[in-house]
Amino acid sequence: MPEPRFDVTALGEMLLRFSVPSGKRLETATNLDVCPAGAEVNVLTLLARLERRTCWMGALPDNPLGKLAVSALRLAGADTSGVIWNAGGRMGTYYVEFGEPPRGIQVTYDRAHWCAAQLHVDEIDWDSLLGTRLLHLTGITPALFPSCREIIIEAVRRAAERGVRVSFDINYRRKLWSETEARETLSPLIQGVELLFCNQTDARRVFNCTGTMQEIAQGMLERSQARNIIVTFAEQGAMLWNGKELRHEPARPTGIIASLTVWAQATRWRPA
Amino acid sequence: MPEPRFDVTALGEMLLRFSVPSGKRLETATNLDVCPAGAEVNVLTLLARLERRTCWMGALPDNPLGKLAVSALRLAGADTSGVIWNAGGRMGTYYVEFGEPPRGIQVTYDRAHWCAAQLHVDEIDWDSLLGTRLLHLTGITPALFPSCREIIIEAVRRAAERGVRVSFDINYRRKLWSETEARETLSPLIQGVELLFCNQTDARRVFNCTGTMQEIAQGMLERSQARNIIVTFAEQGAMLWNGKELRHEPARPTGIIASLTVWAQATRWRPA
Amino acid sequence: MPEPRFDVTALGEMLLRFSVPSGKRLETATNLDVCPAGAEVNVLTLLARLERRTCWMGALPDNPLGKLAVSALRLAGADTSGVIWNAGGRMGTYYVEFGEPPRGIQVTYDRAHWCAAQLHVDEIDWDSLLGTRLLHLTGITPALFPSCREIIIEAVRRAAERGVRVSFDINYRRKLWSETEARETLSPLIQGVELLFCNQTDARRVFNCTGTMQEIAQGMLERSQARNIIVTFAEQGAMLWNGKELRHEPARPTGIIASLTVWAQATRWRPA
Amino acid sequence: MPEPRFDVTALGEMLLRFSVPSGKRLETATNLDVCPAGAEVNVLTLLARLERRTCWMGALPDNPLGKLAVSALRLAGADTSGVIWNAGGRMGTYYVEFGEPPRGIQVTYDRAHWCAAQLHVDEIDWDSLLGTRLLHLTGITPALFPSCREIIIEAVRRAAERGVRVSFDINYRRKLWSETEARETLSPLIQGVELLFCNQTDARRVFNCTGTMQEIAQGMLERSQARNIIVTFAEQGAMLWNGKELRHEPARPTGIIASLTVWAQATRWRPA
Amino acid sequence: MPEPRFDVTALGEMLLRFSVPSGKRLETATNLDVCPAGAEVNVLTLLARLERRTCWMGALPDNPLGKLAVSALRLAGADTSGVIWNAGGRMGTYYVEFGEPPRGIQVTYDRAHWCAAQLHVDEIDWDSLLGTRLLHLTGITPALFPSCREIIIEAVRRAAERGVRVSFDINYRRKLWSETEARETLSPLIQGVELLFCNQTDARRVFNCTGTMQEIAQGMLERSQARNIIVTFAEQGAMLWNGKELRHEPARPTGIIASLTVWAQATRWRPA
Amino acid sequence: MPEPRFDVTALGEMLLRFSVPSGKRLETATNLDVCPAGAEVNVLTLLARLERRTCWMGALPDNPLGKLAVSALRLAGADTSGVIWNAGGRMGTYYVEFGEPPRGIQVTYDRAHWCAAQLHVDEIDWDSLLGTRLLHLTGITPALFPSCREIIIEAVRRAAERGVRVSFDINYRRKLWSETEARETLSPLIQGVELLFCNQTDARRVFNCTGTMQEIAQGMLERSQARNIIVTFAEQGAMLWNGKELRHEPARPTGIIASLTVWAQATRWRPA
Repeated sequence: MPEPRFDVTALGEMLLRFSVPSGKRLETATNLDVCPAGAEVNVLTLLARLERRTCWMGALPDNPLGKLAVSALRLAGADTSGVIWNAGGRMGTYYVEFGEPPRGIQVTYDRAHWCAAQLHVDEIDWDSLLGTRLLHLTGITPALFPSCREIIIEAVRRAAERGVRVSFDINYRRKLWSETEARETLSPLIQGVELLFCNQTDARRVFNCTGTMQEIAQGMLERSQARNIIVTFAEQGAMLWNGKELRHEPARPTGIIASLTVWAQATRWRPA
Repeated sequence: MPEPRFDVTALGEMLLRFSVPSGKRLETATNLDVCPAGAEVNVLTLLARLERRTCWMGALPDNPLGKLAVSALRLAGADTSGVIWNAGGRMGTYYVEFGEPPRGIQVTYDRAHWCAAQLHVDEIDWDSLLGTRLLHLTGITPALFPSCREIIIEAVRRAAERGVRVSFDINYRRKLWSETEARETLSPLIQGVELLFCNQTDARRVFNCTGTMQEIAQGMLERSQARNIIVTFAEQGAMLWNGKELRHEPARPTGIIASLTVWAQATRWRPA
Repeated sequence: MPEPRFDVTALGEMLLRFSVPSGKRLETATNLDVCPAGAEVNVLTLLARLERRTCWMGALPDNPLGKLAVSALRLAGADTSGVIWNAGGRMGTYYVEFGEPPRGIQVTYDRAHWCAAQLHVDEIDWDSLLGTRLLHLTGITPALFPSCREIIIEAVRRAAERGVRVSFDINYRRKLWSETEARETLSPLIQGVELLFCNQTDARRVFNCTGTMQEIAQGMLERSQARNIIVTFAEQGAMLWNGKELRHEPARPTGIIASLTVWAQATRWRPA
Repeated sequence: MPEPRFDVTALGEMLLRFSVPSGKRLETATNLDVCPAGAEVNVLTLLARLERRTCWMGALPDNPLGKLAVSALRLAGADTSGVIWNAGGRMGTYYVEFGEPPRGIQVTYDRAHWCAAQLHVDEIDWDSLLGTRLLHLTGITPALFPSCREIIIEAVRRAAERGVRVSFDINYRRKLWSETEARETLSPLIQGVELLFCNQTDARRVFNCTGTMQEIAQGMLERSQARNIIVTFAEQGAMLWNGKELRHEPARPTGIIASLTVWAQATRWRPA
Repeated sequence: MPEPRFDVTALGEMLLRFSVPSGKRLETATNLDVCPAGAEVNVLTLLARLERRTCWMGALPDNPLGKLAVSALRLAGADTSGVIWNAGGRMGTYYVEFGEPPRGIQVTYDRAHWCAAQLHVDEIDWDSLLGTRLLHLTGITPALFPSCREIIIEAVRRAAERGVRVSFDINYRRKLWSETEARETLSPLIQGVELLFCNQTDARRVFNCTGTMQEIAQGMLERSQARNIIVTFAEQGAMLWNGKELRHEPARPTGIIASLTVWAQATRWRPA
Repeated sequence: MPEPRFDVTALGEMLLRFSVPSGKRLETATNLDVCPAGAEVNVLTLLARLERRTCWMGALPDNPLGKLAVSALRLAGADTSGVIWNAGGRMGTYYVEFGEPPRGIQVTYDRAHWCAAQLHVDEIDWDSLLGTRLLHLTGITPALFPSCREIIIEAVRRAAERGVRVSFDINYRRKLWSETEARETLSPLIQGVELLFCNQTDARRVFNCTGTMQEIAQGMLERSQARNIIVTFAEQGAMLWNGKELRHEPARPTGIIASLTVWAQATRWRPA
């Protein structure tokens, strides 16, 4: 079998984030910072900066806003040949105002008519998608639209068929679906994946895993039969568990970066 | 009859314009200028700066983007008590990249699910709307959505009933409707209005008025029975014609401001 | 009696604050941020954002700097019809450099020939000023100039005559007058007001109120016969005392905003 | 006689210019550019960049705004040891809004209580002032305040006494004084100066010099007995006339810089 | 023969351009814009935006400045796998101040110890370089350093051997070498290339081609035996001549973009 | 003996520091802040702001980058007549990216061909250099290049000869030389200086001084026979020791400024 073209390929969605300069209010703003965003994209661009060969696949509108989203991938060095250009749909956007206490952060979503909803399973170039050492998916995509769910189910099925390893980040979003619907949808998708990422809260609320850190990781292992479980415990760091070996990675002062650090280790650590 | 609360009230729509700083490309932008926009709003805010009492009525989403739109009115001193807050709709937006030759200006509209489409005729507070010396309307609003058209028809009918003078700016938009549809819709609306604004191109293309400047103005007068016709002729200036008196206002170096200058004169000149 | 036009009207003064971008020095600045400021204006603009109907009355120079001051009121949605335009006076200004420790904040005032000094009692439109549910005044205004003091005295007298409730914020400024002069001037002005705001330090130093929090509030109540006393105790929060009911509002992490929060509650709580 | 410490020393006044970023309005500005300005300072800083040894003498308030003014001199390399620090006075300021046509430039002066008015003739360190090859003065200073006029008269008298050459730029300002007052004040001051600068309009309006370019220069020569006359004729360039030699310097595309260019030549050209 | 991986690959050099914001002076700058630059890079990034598959090969220092240069290629979508990372050399830089008339543009080069000088012929991955439909070279590279010249000579030799078409832009730089040295070095390199770009001035001064536009193109054809000659004539546009067919492309208002437009056509036009 | 022209003169080197705006990465920067830097310059400019008469002597390239370096001195009011303009050398530069944790600060030096290396001992104007109350030197300069070391040795020798007091800041830089080489070079230079500055770490690692704060200061005194020793102990403050009198200056919250504060005291405190 030839060496796959990419180390990590992700299938997911992108939005544009408009944010008000710190200390200003959105309701009187005169200029906004703009930045492409998305759970899978964040992972890919950081891995690309660590010199992994990465590729993003998903739908974007065929207009300058879609190209702006692509620019973020390009700048990081991620491959963009898998973008599926959509003729009529909208770019999903959201607006952020970073509050100073006692005012909190304020987020206004604007996802109506998002082109992500219009992507269909037969638009995916499966050969391209699966030409990778690892396929990365998240629990956000199947929560967005029925067509997205269908695509993720098919992606997992085909990856298994071809022997492509899958990485799955649960990433449960309360605003998008219920815990029950998430558990029923995600459970079959995560069976036997190479890497399963989950934070402590989602493990408890979606998969009813409780107890010590190791018990939670073991609970996720039993429910998924995944080869490697990575559970993040906020400021207590991240834990890797594969049924035999238990590794703990302490959280860095910037907790947000912790799981990515674990990730980089996990992909560096090649399974036998 | 008591003195009306406002000099000029307009009923129309607002969008947010996002523009790339001059010389930059939208597809690689990192920040955008944002500015509320709309044909009626431009007129009202300039009149407010000239110390006219003005009021805007229209639908805006009840979120920070809607409040951002309102800020532009407030800053100019226009009244915003007529805003109809919409719970679920989107703020209409568009993106502008100012090209340097040979590249032209590039505009990307994002008007899907615009809350303007959701405004219904029975949401209008007619007493508020008509408490004005002059009601200003444009040909853009009836072109947007059927519900908008219905509102404008009702506004014209009620203004006539109450004896409130109407100002109407044809402002034909080719991308929104055909010339035939525009003519058939607008003709009944402009009958007997106090002020009718039209540019030379729209007079020819929508109303088949050709000939000299005076012949065009006379053609518009015959088709509308308006009390005063103001036709703008780009760099040749603007002409006011009321069947008896003919006045010509030369264009200023900045042609865009010309019609507003004429407007200020026209409202200063009180009909007997 | 008809419903008054405004919820809160304030009579006071505005300045323009020029501040150096953080980390820069004023003596080598190349650009400055500019922002209208004033004790009464801060209260009014925040209340306007909370959708109270507010109005500001005071003198401003009839030039672009005066209009710049007015813009801040407009943007917040406060009414500006009570501005008294002054033909020859200056806009008061001050310059701020935010120091990084060990360097402290540095303020340079430039209030010579301020138009506030030129406002006379017979320029006030009393009907306008008193068409409000609550008249808000501060102890800064009578400290500025004799003419200002005369205006505040007359405002308090007329409000009592018409039954308009008064809110008074002691706001003692050491650089403007002595404690003795402040006490002698302010004591008659605060008799029987609806709301009396005072911080712990001013209560002690101007009115000799000491002891526990409740004792200080009681001391202010005895000296003023105000209906409601609000004393702020920095990080210990604010206390409301009306002789019967005692309420304590803890300070938020940003203490500066605490008294405004109390205020919003106090005006929400309608006296019988 | 020892070599003087400076090539050119000027005695005059400085203001701070606050300007709105191009395309913005002062009445809604949120930040302003700030730049020290003054007729004499402009000459000195440009000469300093051309590596002449220059020194400025005048009054500035002893606060950060005065130091900001001094920074402009320092940055250009001009000497600032002649600054007379004033304890109580104001920094003169003015506000500029650069209009786009049809709106013109708008200037708002704020010179009340300017410390320039408080400088007295006995505060001048005459030895310092006259330790120069050339003393540069303008017609603005004597027009400002009586005390300024007295200082300029004394400076001219002492320069003559010591044999220090004087350069004088008429620079008539209509807003400050009448043509008659200017002529009567300036005529004795310019007698026999080394360099006399004047533009065509001031030559005509203040000194009644008309005719061809050479006739105007000759008229100024007769009225002043100056060693060298430099008259600027806007886009027709500048003319140097000393009674024998006539030199013409064409205007550069940027007319504003023309007279400074001539100046640099004139000071390079050493009188016998 | 398999389809080559790229449409256009270029071998050349990059610098970082630091420029002062317009209207400011470098000698008092507080911030600078930074932008990667290079004759070959400009061509590649524009072609990449036109969706050609492009690749750049050259040496860059293995530090953040080298990565900054690479970012410009990535952002445009050009391939960067051919970058040869240099451990010890410097990034070449230059500083630009855009003058306002009468001051001209001012460029300060800082190319000492440039890593471009350290690249040797045996560091080139020839298989990668030649996996392209068209190899683009310029006359700047052989002018820089002897090692660069050797690389270009070898590249042309190997391209001919493999049948890879070559595009060559004369781009004579007077500051780098003499006309004689340029002619003697470049003449053998351009023999039989697919596309030869040259401007009128270089054709005359380096290759002694004079006369009408067609005569100049014919002169270049005779001297190079190139398949296609493109000569640019500034505001008179560009001419394509292949010995049989003569095509003229008028200059666009922005002359700088003209040759790139021609280029896009030339590569669209596939030789038989 | 006449009063020297300056209070403090320093002989040293300057670089330009380019820094990425906080939160951005150098590898994707589009603009950079630029600021002249250098150990001696930092001391001089701060002393100049405290109204000491200061002068800097050193080599700078005779181009706009050298003039940019000089601007920082001028703006602070330091004298720049001692700059030795170098015709061919480079301006030393370095690039800084301020990291957010867990990413640290990243510095990229670009000092190849620095003009500092080309300065020779016979280019120094010794009369100018020594016309000062105090000559300030640091241990960085002799570490840079052999020619620099030779200059510092000569400066110390001549200062002793003329009776000019010397201030010496050890400022050991590990990247430039070994501890042994530093000790052997610096020991003769610091014998009998007026002021010797050293931090605790350098005292230990270069001069093997350990123990209590006072023991370390005493160790430095014994090794240098300096009149006054100032040792800085990071957050524990600075200590002045002259063999008789011991003074301790606590560290301010901003430790970096501590030694400068001590310095200002030390120079205010005149030795008998």
